[in-house]
Amino acid sequence: MAFSNSHKVRIEWSDCDPAGIIFYPRYFEIFDAATSALFERALGMTKLQLLKTFDIADFPLANTRARFLRPTRYGDDVVVNTTATMGHASFEIEHRLSFNGLVCVECTETRVWVVRDPATGRLRSHAVPEEVREKFGAGSSS
Amino acid sequence: MAFSNSHKVRIEWSDCDPAGIIFYPRYFEIFDAATSALFERALGMTKLQLLKTFDIADFPLANTRARFLRPTRYGDDVVVNTTATMGHASFEIEHRLSFNGLVCVECTETRVWVVRDPATGRLRSHAVPEEVREKFGAGSSS
Amino acid sequence: MAFSNSHKVRIEWSDCDPAGIIFYPRYFEIFDAATSALFERALGMTKLQLLKTFDIADFPLANTRARFLRPTRYGDDVVVNTTATMGHASFEIEHRLSFNGLVCVECTETRVWVVRDPATGRLRSHAVPEEVREKFGAGSSS
Amino acid sequence: MAFSNSHKVRIEWSDCDPAGIIFYPRYFEIFDAATSALFERALGMTKLQLLKTFDIADFPLANTRARFLRPTRYGDDVVVNTTATMGHASFEIEHRLSFNGLVCVECTETRVWVVRDPATGRLRSHAVPEEVREKFGAGSSS
Repeated sequence: MAFSNSHKVRIEWSDCDPAGIIFYPRYFEIFDAATSALFERALGMTKLQLLKTFDIADFPLANTRARFLRPTRYGDDVVVNTTATMGHASFEIEHRLSFNGLVCVECTETRVWVVRDPATGRLRSHAVPEEVREKFGAGSSS
Repeated sequence: MAFSNSHKVRIEWSDCDPAGIIFYPRYFEIFDAATSALFERALGMTKLQLLKTFDIADFPLANTRARFLRPTRYGDDVVVNTTATMGHASFEIEHRLSFNGLVCVECTETRVWVVRDPATGRLRSHAVPEEVREKFGAGSSS
Repeated sequence: MAFSNSHKVRIEWSDCDPAGIIFYPRYFEIFDAATSALFERALGMTKLQLLKTFDIADFPLANTRARFLRPTRYGDDVVVNTTATMGHASFEIEHRLSFNGLVCVECTETRVWVVRDPATGRLRSHAVPEEVREKFGAGSSS
Repeated sequence: MAFSNSHKVRIEWSDCDPAGIIFYPRYFEIFDAATSALFERALGMTKLQLLKTFDIADFPLANTRARFLRPTRYGDDVVVNTTATMGHASFEIEHRLSFNGLVCVECTETRVWVVRDPATGRLRSHAVPEEVREKFGAGSSS
């Protein structure tokens, strides 16, 4: 099972380059915010509260793949549809960014649930808490 | 055949997030600059001169894939090894970002040679000029 | 006379640095978007439409001053109150960014109305059109 | 007395906006890196080492002022001349960014030496250590 959210973003002047279209790394900033918005909707808390509540450092990316189908321009009000599918210590995120109903970018991410080891201070992966998995429709029985 | 370049970058304070590691979209900014640096080395001109000389608008991405193996932190002096392989109207770029000899990120991009249609003002793909292909070791006889 | 607008922004994870607070150049990105939002509200068109309608290249900054009174953190939903006062070929913008009613940053900008000279292709300043001035409450009779 | 450093930066494609010139908040990212470079030169350690060595959280801005005299464009190799003048718990930084010998931006910053209060976890200002002041030519006898 999976959990979805829809996130609206204005493409700003600052997101665009001298060719007049979005500078593509900005899409990854948008996708990162969309992932935070998804967690906020699923868990009912901001990323800051999430990190504190579950005592994690972050959920960084292991990998990402993106296809750029149509450029977007400043002033475009785009929609990002984001879906998460929970695994054991990682989860898959799919983003579909569209403008006026046309898909512009498709992106898939694998992210890892990461805690800071109290002994060494280093980051290491950790099982996603059952409470989080349930909110994403992926409880122990699934 | 292919053409390679090595590009040194300092991971800055501004590249890093509250977890103390690089915010991953910054890698794509670094890779974009590394691609520009590769073209500058192959053709002996800056991206600005390149766009003017060949009357192109840009070489935007069709897709990208990245694997994040180890995080980097501010103050890290990393090296990006970039290799381009020319196709007909597109080209493949591989980036390998390493710190102290350890690979931290691997990234593959497909980029398209794009011109602005004089009639419509829209961007459209175009064959990579033979002169550029030759500089990248991919002349008509190859 | 002057024209005001209120613009809400979420401080994102990506806006913050390893000290856990906003990286201050992000404030200027926020202020730039707030200025665009002000123009959009005053003129009823996006910045893209604005540039086309009045055939201008941009309204870049001549100078800016900012005071940072309190830091903001990711997850903070801040409000930017922006006021513009029109001059002849330039205008003053004041931004006041606050969180939970407390002012965090005060910023003043002077921006110039700029057109691209058709002969040389260079940017040069130009009188703000009367139609724009009127929308900002600064018509010829004021 | 004061301490100066010269820092070279390439204006990248990603720094520029649809008007083809640098998006001005990028200057503040450049100035922040120039300040780090100045400290690195004065103290012989990176910002990461600096924060650890002196147990500080950061040296955030109290205020900044900038004048934009000429635009810069991607491909421009600019030079930032940075000078610091130490105060008791704060210091003044002056940046002068130039291209081909012409000054493009002048910026003045006031920054505060900040520690994290061990009791409350909040950031608060603190006297600049004597060892740092001496390296900047501002010892107790000066």
